[in-house]
Amino acid sequence: MGPLAAADFLKKLVEETPAASDQEHIPYVAWGVPQIPDRPAAILGRGESPLPQMLRGIAALKQAGAQAIAIACNTAHYWHDDLLRQGGLPILHIADAVCDLLAERGITAGSIGLIGTEGTLHAGFFQQRFAARGLGCIVSSAEDRRQLVLPAIAAVKANRLPQAHTLAVQAALRLHDAGARAVVLACTETPLAIDHAASAATPLCIDATRALARACVSWHRQASETSRTG
Amino acid sequence: MGPLAAADFLKKLVEETPAASDQEHIPYVAWGVPQIPDRPAAILGRGESPLPQMLRGIAALKQAGAQAIAIACNTAHYWHDDLLRQGGLPILHIADAVCDLLAERGITAGSIGLIGTEGTLHAGFFQQRFAARGLGCIVSSAEDRRQLVLPAIAAVKANRLPQAHTLAVQAALRLHDAGARAVVLACTETPLAIDHAASAATPLCIDATRALARACVSWHRQASETSRTG
Repeated sequence: MGPLAAADFLKKLVEETPAASDQEHIPYVAWGVPQIPDRPAAILGRGESPLPQMLRGIAALKQAGAQAIAIACNTAHYWHDDLLRQGGLPILHIADAVCDLLAERGITAGSIGLIGTEGTLHAGFFQQRFAARGLGCIVSSAEDRRQLVLPAIAAVKANRLPQAHTLAVQAALRLHDAGARAVVLACTETPLAIDHAASAATPLCIDATRALARACVSWHRQASETSRTG
Repeated sequence: MGPLAAADFLKKLVEETPAASDQEHIPYVAWGVPQIPDRPAAILGRGESPLPQMLRGIAALKQAGAQAIAIACNTAHYWHDDLLRQGGLPILHIADAVCDLLAERGITAGSIGLIGTEGTLHAGFFQQRFAARGLGCIVSSAEDRRQLVLPAIAAVKANRLPQAHTLAVQAALRLHDAGARAVVLACTETPLAIDHAASAATPLCIDATRALARACVSWHRQASETSRTG
């Protein structure tokens, strides 16, 4: 729900769709309303809950014809279960999408590095889903979060990509040094920082935004097959 | 309405918004349904009209709370007047947005180069709006359209950006050689081709997608002021 996150997600949705013509692409309705209470602050108990506004978004999307929901914000998945229960539509989970992509890449054991906002790390849903698949989780130290991760996110939001790139690459490599087999970029800003240029971190990183786009493509293919054969 | 066009438009909308925080960005709902009849074919009298489906899109967006419409497809502006009459919402016009940006850059006389699909060139709304502001219009020759413009658009759709870049830069410089003071990229694919790298064409080109994003920012500022003072 960073303002650029939706545009980046839609671009990756197009890139991940195997389509030979415009008409084969996946139809979507997107709800981009940034006037929503700050998610990390709410998770850390320091602000109003964004849940009512997210439910209004889901209601509007449902009314407009959406049959499943994807949320292009890792932190917002803190409210996934509430949204699922009260929203009345299936909601793909970004951490499940990441786990599926890890499995596709043959990563089914060992520890995974996790780069995200304080809210996402605190919420714990990535750690829980990794554990359910037999994977450990390594997060950046408090010092690395303060000196590398948070400044990288802020630099992307301020459109200073070269600076963001240097910081994010360092954060990813530090997790690799600590034993991570792969590093999940679980904040919509960090893939923009890492992908700004090729680096030693490139082959290590799993982009959660792209994983979610791939999950949408799978969902759409299955839903289309069901509607054809049903 | 090329599948990447909406993502590119939303990115430019964020870039053109003077915002210091997420919450200051412009709220939007986006309708991305590529299962719509081919626009250029319809304009050239060889296919079904996309008007009913575009009207369904506007109705869904209005229901979801949209108060004005922007269409991230130059060719679709062929139906602008019908959509305005039947859709019940103000619709910003991409060619007006381009004329405003030309005026901002001090270009109020002489001829403007126009790069677009066959449908956009045939529709004539850019030429008419340029004329209304005292500007002439130069379009690529039939040969340049066949050898440069259409292959550049196809290369962007196939994600072959370096090839698209070479072709689009040539097309723009040919219009400059023919006397154009500026070249309007009036097809959502061509800005992606030109912007792939810096070139002699860069300072000449006006990106219609970005002009439309700027028009949305202006509309939103005026609407916010009206609602505050009204």
